[in-house]
Amino acid sequence: MADHNALPLVILAEKFASLPGIGMKSAQRLAYHVMSMSSEEVEDFAKALTDAKKNVHCCKCCQNLTEREVCPICDDPERDRSVICVVENPKDVTAFERTREYGGVYHVLHGLLSPMDGITPDKLRVKELLARIAEGGVEEVIMATNPTVEGDATAMYIAGLLKPMGIKVTRLAFGLPVGGILEYADEVTLFKALENRNDM
Amino acid sequence: MADHNALPLVILAEKFASLPGIGMKSAQRLAYHVMSMSSEEVEDFAKALTDAKKNVHCCKCCQNLTEREVCPICDDPERDRSVICVVENPKDVTAFERTREYGGVYHVLHGLLSPMDGITPDKLRVKELLARIAEGGVEEVIMATNPTVEGDATAMYIAGLLKPMGIKVTRLAFGLPVGGILEYADEVTLFKALENRNDM
Repeated sequence: MADHNALPLVILAEKFASLPGIGMKSAQRLAYHVMSMSSEEVEDFAKALTDAKKNVHCCKCCQNLTEREVCPICDDPERDRSVICVVENPKDVTAFERTREYGGVYHVLHGLLSPMDGITPDKLRVKELLARIAEGGVEEVIMATNPTVEGDATAMYIAGLLKPMGIKVTRLAFGLPVGGILEYADEVTLFKALENRNDM
Repeated sequence: MADHNALPLVILAEKFASLPGIGMKSAQRLAYHVMSMSSEEVEDFAKALTDAKKNVHCCKCCQNLTEREVCPICDDPERDRSVICVVENPKDVTAFERTREYGGVYHVLHGLLSPMDGITPDKLRVKELLARIAEGGVEEVIMATNPTVEGDATAMYIAGLLKPMGIKVTRLAFGLPVGGILEYADEVTLFKALENRNDM
């Protein structure tokens, strides 16, 4: 924003622009929008920001974000504690919960291995996962990281740690997305779909 | 966000989603991003919100947003006070200032006439414009509202008020955008470009 703009507006636009996926132009529009909100709405927004940061932390069991000590999923007696689905981040838990088909529990790694970026196993919540499994009762660990280089590497690394402990480790199936069009599928997806074909 | 999500995160995502151009999915991503910011950064963001709302108000002269009593443009002795450029909102002032070619002052209407939506002249800063002109010294008023139905109607309405006061009222030129491709210009733009053609 140029010199003639009010400094508090420039600062606010910069804060918005520091968020992912918001460019400087959108940030300016958002800053102007804040000016059109009532003082009460702005106070509520500011409070929502600090409240979320202050009151939300990682579940001491699955590491998902929660405002309680143990998250509602870990706390649910109907959940099957013998199956742990390992995901990269809390968004992935939401994605699985939307299917309404998974009855086990989760473990959130808060990242994927990427040694080039300095993300080594000690930066992820891997030891918390090992500690949960060491407590016993876990039969299967589903590696549900993304089908990317980092996702695959993380899944392979954790599988390597768990297999000697006698745990069954599985990986999400890769293949054609439901409703997808064969013609537009990329080669690797099509190859995986062919390789993992099922009897009818 | 689903039941299992931490309530403060759900509230924060809803606040983000209430901003223009941010859908629920982006809002959730932003809420999660806030969790990865430091407490200090979040406090700064919250403070930027409330500071902007508290300290920024309309310039008593041109109605642009500023944290001072009179904005830097109205306060600049080098600005030509005899020319007023009338714009819809503060963003338009920034757009004109970027050209570095305009040396006059501005007047921000904070909206455009739209009787269907209940936006009548008394909802805009029209009487403030008339008061400025009544003080004398103004020779030309440039109507720089958008070339839309509302923008044109607002320009026509204000021109109708100013002409009897002996003020020269002008409108921004319409034509092909510089660097634009003739083939892709819409019919109305092309017609305007033809109608307003200049001698070479």
